[in-house]
Amino acid sequence: MAEQIAIQDRIPDNHCFGCGPDNRQGLQIKSYWTGDDESRCEFTPRPHHCAGPTHYLNGGIIATAIDCHTICTAIADGYRQAGREVGGGEKIWFATGRLDVQYKAPAPIDKPVILEAKIVERSERKTVLHCTLSSGGRLCATADVVAVRVPDKW
Amino acid sequence: MAEQIAIQDRIPDNHCFGCGPDNRQGLQIKSYWTGDDESRCEFTPRPHHCAGPTHYLNGGIIATAIDCHTICTAIADGYRQAGREVGGGEKIWFATGRLDVQYKAPAPIDKPVILEAKIVERSERKTVLHCTLSSGGRLCATADVVAVRVPDKW
Repeated sequence: MAEQIAIQDRIPDNHCFGCGPDNRQGLQIKSYWTGDDESRCEFTPRPHHCAGPTHYLNGGIIATAIDCHTICTAIADGYRQAGREVGGGEKIWFATGRLDVQYKAPAPIDKPVILEAKIVERSERKTVLHCTLSSGGRLCATADVVAVRVPDKW
Repeated sequence: MAEQIAIQDRIPDNHCFGCGPDNRQGLQIKSYWTGDDESRCEFTPRPHHCAGPTHYLNGGIIATAIDCHTICTAIADGYRQAGREVGGGEKIWFATGRLDVQYKAPAPIDKPVILEAKIVERSERKTVLHCTLSSGGRLCATADVVAVRVPDKW
């Protein structure tokens, strides 16, 4: 795989807590295409991203990373379907319609987590994705996400 | 309703990003009982909790607040069912099994959001809750959450 620029580093005006490149108090996750319909993100938590016990990653942070990884994949796919580079021409924007996370095992706070998303359905109005989150080779969460196309003025 | 201590301020050893009272970079949400099976939380976002556009609250932060509000309600209910004050005696701990959030409308970043949770089912092993999140009287998200009882050593 050739060196790529992260999807989030091409999306214009993205101030998002989960993935805005300039949101210094945010997670700043980075997503990359790994196939036609597949993308990957590796995220290293910080200590304050913990759950009740300090050795596990917070479930809300897991949901946030999944949300941003899948929505940015949908945005990048929107540009791809339009035959344009991410950020080129008229802005394409998706918002989360549904985020359904199933937690399978706790993820340690001191290891990176790997998110792998796959587009399972796309239409004019929405893109449906499946995502897994694993840590050290162990599946920690799966998720089904509906990304809804929203106007640029959103 | 008499003055209450927040559920999170009674749960011992809670360092959670979403609701740990001492997690300074966290959300520090506070939940209160409003009925036998119902609880309420008012959360005021900070500017960096934004979505892609800076005027909306991030969907991951919405999921995080819902996660913590419902799980802490399940924990408090666990103590109640055991006939004890939250934090009294043997620790009771729940983790998120499933977090299914349906987003209905964007929530402005500059207004508090109100979360209202209701316990819809409880058994030895799990507690099921429904939760709404609204802003300025407008419903922004609904969620169904499965809280799973986990051992104290979790």
